[in-house]
Amino acid sequence: MDKNKGMQESALFVMGGVEASHDGMQYGVPKKFRKKKADNLNIQKLAQDVRAGSRVQLSKAITLIESSNSTHKAQAQELLQELLPHTGNSVRIGITGVPGAGKSSFIEAFGTMLCEMGKKVAVLAIDPSSSLSGGSILGDKTRMEELVKKPNAFVRPSPSAGTLGGVHKKTRETMLVCEAAGYDVILIETVGVGQSETYVRGMVDFFLLLVLTGAGDELQGMKKGIMELADAIVVHKADGDNVRLAKKTVSEYKQILHFLQPATPGWMSTAMPVSSWEKKGLDKVWDTIGEFRQTVEANNYWSIRRQNQTRDWFQSMITDHLIDAFYGDPNRKEQVQLLERQILNGQLTVTQGVDRLFSDEQSQK
Amino acid sequence: MDKNKGMQESALFVMGGVEASHDGMQYGVPKKFRKKKADNLNIQKLAQDVRAGSRVQLSKAITLIESSNSTHKAQAQELLQELLPHTGNSVRIGITGVPGAGKSSFIEAFGTMLCEMGKKVAVLAIDPSSSLSGGSILGDKTRMEELVKKPNAFVRPSPSAGTLGGVHKKTRETMLVCEAAGYDVILIETVGVGQSETYVRGMVDFFLLLVLTGAGDELQGMKKGIMELADAIVVHKADGDNVRLAKKTVSEYKQILHFLQPATPGWMSTAMPVSSWEKKGLDKVWDTIGEFRQTVEANNYWSIRRQNQTRDWFQSMITDHLIDAFYGDPNRKEQVQLLERQILNGQLTVTQGVDRLFSDEQSQK
Repeated sequence: MDKNKGMQESALFVMGGVEASHDGMQYGVPKKFRKKKADNLNIQKLAQDVRAGSRVQLSKAITLIESSNSTHKAQAQELLQELLPHTGNSVRIGITGVPGAGKSSFIEAFGTMLCEMGKKVAVLAIDPSSSLSGGSILGDKTRMEELVKKPNAFVRPSPSAGTLGGVHKKTRETMLVCEAAGYDVILIETVGVGQSETYVRGMVDFFLLLVLTGAGDELQGMKKGIMELADAIVVHKADGDNVRLAKKTVSEYKQILHFLQPATPGWMSTAMPVSSWEKKGLDKVWDTIGEFRQTVEANNYWSIRRQNQTRDWFQSMITDHLIDAFYGDPNRKEQVQLLERQILNGQLTVTQGVDRLFSDEQSQK
Repeated sequence: MDKNKGMQESALFVMGGVEASHDGMQYGVPKKFRKKKADNLNIQKLAQDVRAGSRVQLSKAITLIESSNSTHKAQAQELLQELLPHTGNSVRIGITGVPGAGKSSFIEAFGTMLCEMGKKVAVLAIDPSSSLSGGSILGDKTRMEELVKKPNAFVRPSPSAGTLGGVHKKTRETMLVCEAAGYDVILIETVGVGQSETYVRGMVDFFLLLVLTGAGDELQGMKKGIMELADAIVVHKADGDNVRLAKKTVSEYKQILHFLQPATPGWMSTAMPVSSWEKKGLDKVWDTIGEFRQTVEANNYWSIRRQNQTRDWFQSMITDHLIDAFYGDPNRKEQVQLLERQILNGQLTVTQGVDRLFSDEQSQK
């Protein structure tokens, strides 16, 4: 581990990830040399370096995983298979929140506390906005300034390389590489667009929802079903004048949680006030995660969930492949649109639409 | 409309549906003659009879739709296309509830009230249990005794012919046939197994959740996310000693609903006490549905939702077809199971698993 590296290198990790994500492998090497360089990659060596704790090599490994180049893809899989036996030894924590809830400042404060406790902390952010803007929410260097200075921290955005399915897949594999690199705690941030929370819930052990005080008003803007994904709710910005209101909000949330189905069998989801600014309540969050782990390991659901998650991941990748292959044919896409119009106009039944789409197939039977 | 028909014929409809569902077309005709009879069907005539309000012919039409015989399937689609221009003129209401909430007695009382108001009421029940037991929850003749006597009522169970996807598709088409037959109100009951509520929510305008008093305890057994599907919650069995508790429960639910995302944009989901036994509060439910319709027609979401539902139905049938076609090959199924084991053992990455599954395809590219 590079414990002696300071701020500048840490900051480089953040930006390195972002830059690389736009163009695949990119280390200041002119474009024409890049492919050759990638081809010369020694995967065994890279795996060793990742396992030895080199953050530069970890960054490189993740960039390889995120690349859409087919050579890189094959190499990434070779690397992952190499690392697979060394994965699984972290607590995987998903973090989401309503807009303005202060996810980054929470992750900064919480991650810093964990680093100071001697934990190795990796932060991965799913960032669907980047597929629209081409930029990344973590591109802003001022975010997580303190955390990136910690030698035990690794902060990496995972900008979407197209579909959310893609993000999904790559974030999971990135998580596995971080585990092989010895990170004890993986924090996966999601900004809560589309189905991203469900995806993240499907890859973590513990899911945390950040909210603000004044639940009643604020919840009007909360996504459907999100509370039922959460193992704990943090009422954030519980500082200054806000403290009393935060406590009230906590008890309101506890009441609601009582009415909802728990996110994890055997665990009663809870709520607590936290101030990242005053660094209050962060230890309580970590204690709660510890209790959660004890409870869920005791009823065996810890490993059952992970197995289920892997199985679901495989199944959903198969389904994605089938759908992509089908719509990948531009004629098919056009045909579907035409049939859809006819169905909406009442000229065709839905079943007839589907039958026409697959009639060649049926006549072959 | 056969306003003068009495109890015996009505009761026949219920049982007719149940019997037919086990064996396809079955009207007391010996098996060897059945196919011939079906082939001689005059679809134009059947469509006319359905539109003219014959419940016997409506029953026959639904049995045709539920049949898995390929001749029947083609005829069913012909019939549906004939009826399509005459569909869409009902209020489609989905009804679910926790076990023991009294769904049948509510539907019986509510449907009877609507019939007495001069409405034509069709009751369709999605019944996943029947695919396991071969029987139907509506097979019990004592259910909805009063309602089936009404000349304006049509009660029909839709036992699952295998997959839930199948139920889904057939219930939608059954609903369309009932609309063409002039039914003003379609009540679709779901017993709440698997994803059935989501399916039903995806085919109705208004979704009603039945609960009992004592929300706190009872909700522990409630399915995740179900409250966020509901446009209204009926606190049922609000009679006798239960009245005061029911009122308290109503206000608790209203509070929770305030915290949740509304099921329908622009409509604030609400809760109300109902006694089907004392026939109290049933008119309030109907008034609420009326207000709902006004509100949602005013913001245009009424038709937008129906269009979205049809579009989603088409999309999900395409996806179902792709998945069925893929797993329909027994070798594929075995291969998937083998790869899944290797993935769970840590011998393969998920991506490698998917790549192996589709490697033939990829080498052809």
